[in-house]
Amino acid sequence: MTDFVLHPIGWVESPLQDRAAAPKQGDEGAPDAWLRFTEAAGPGLRDLTAGTDVLLLTWLDRADRDTLTVHPRGDLSRPATGVFSTRSPDRPNPVGLHRVTILAVAGTRVHVRGLEALDGTPIVDVKPVLDPIGDR
Amino acid sequence: MTDFVLHPIGWVESPLQDRAAAPKQGDEGAPDAWLRFTEAAGPGLRDLTAGTDVLLLTWLDRADRDTLTVHPRGDLSRPATGVFSTRSPDRPNPVGLHRVTILAVAGTRVHVRGLEALDGTPIVDVKPVLDPIGDR
Repeated sequence: MTDFVLHPIGWVESPLQDRAAAPKQGDEGAPDAWLRFTEAAGPGLRDLTAGTDVLLLTWLDRADRDTLTVHPRGDLSRPATGVFSTRSPDRPNPVGLHRVTILAVAGTRVHVRGLEALDGTPIVDVKPVLDPIGDR
Repeated sequence: MTDFVLHPIGWVESPLQDRAAAPKQGDEGAPDAWLRFTEAAGPGLRDLTAGTDVLLLTWLDRADRDTLTVHPRGDLSRPATGVFSTRSPDRPNPVGLHRVTILAVAGTRVHVRGLEALDGTPIVDVKPVLDPIGDR
């Protein structure tokens, strides 16, 4: 099958520098962060609104793409779990999916609450949340 | 910024052949479909369970990647909307996001309910749904 190329549209600016210290999901105390978009992506951002939630898609560039099974929480007493039943960042195509609340929009800079992605993580896409709300 | 390459892990088998006829979102009457995975992806599927919901990530390979603004529902009487505030398939990185219910798992073939993707659409990833449920 043909491969496909992702062109990043921006990157994450976050105090989170270290994967070992990153919370597993956003609601476990992840910090606020800035999304920095390219000028080229600018027109796509024009209707993002403070106070609303969006789904952010990232590229988890520090992931191990050869991983197909994992031990959630490092529990080696159980059989490994198929990676498509987990949110492990290590997976064949490490697209991160993060639901965040927009705090402010300033041109190509978007301030968000509760993002567990590491500083420098490339951004691939932003989508609105569909009702009913979820994926937190 | 560096580009990233997606390696498809499977493809959609669906009666939906025509983008013009496809419903806009899964709950508008999208058909049941089969997800066909490669043998290489097989170990990752081992814990997928009938009766549960998952998030399917696809590559919308018929999308226009130069699109940054759109008129939702073709309404030209209003200004165009920034694409990151829509679920338009036309966007810079056309990763589709679909919440589906698993009906059955048979090796590398997974039967799902309510998928609006076209026949032949490449599959990029599968993730579990996090509570609270949403994105339908």
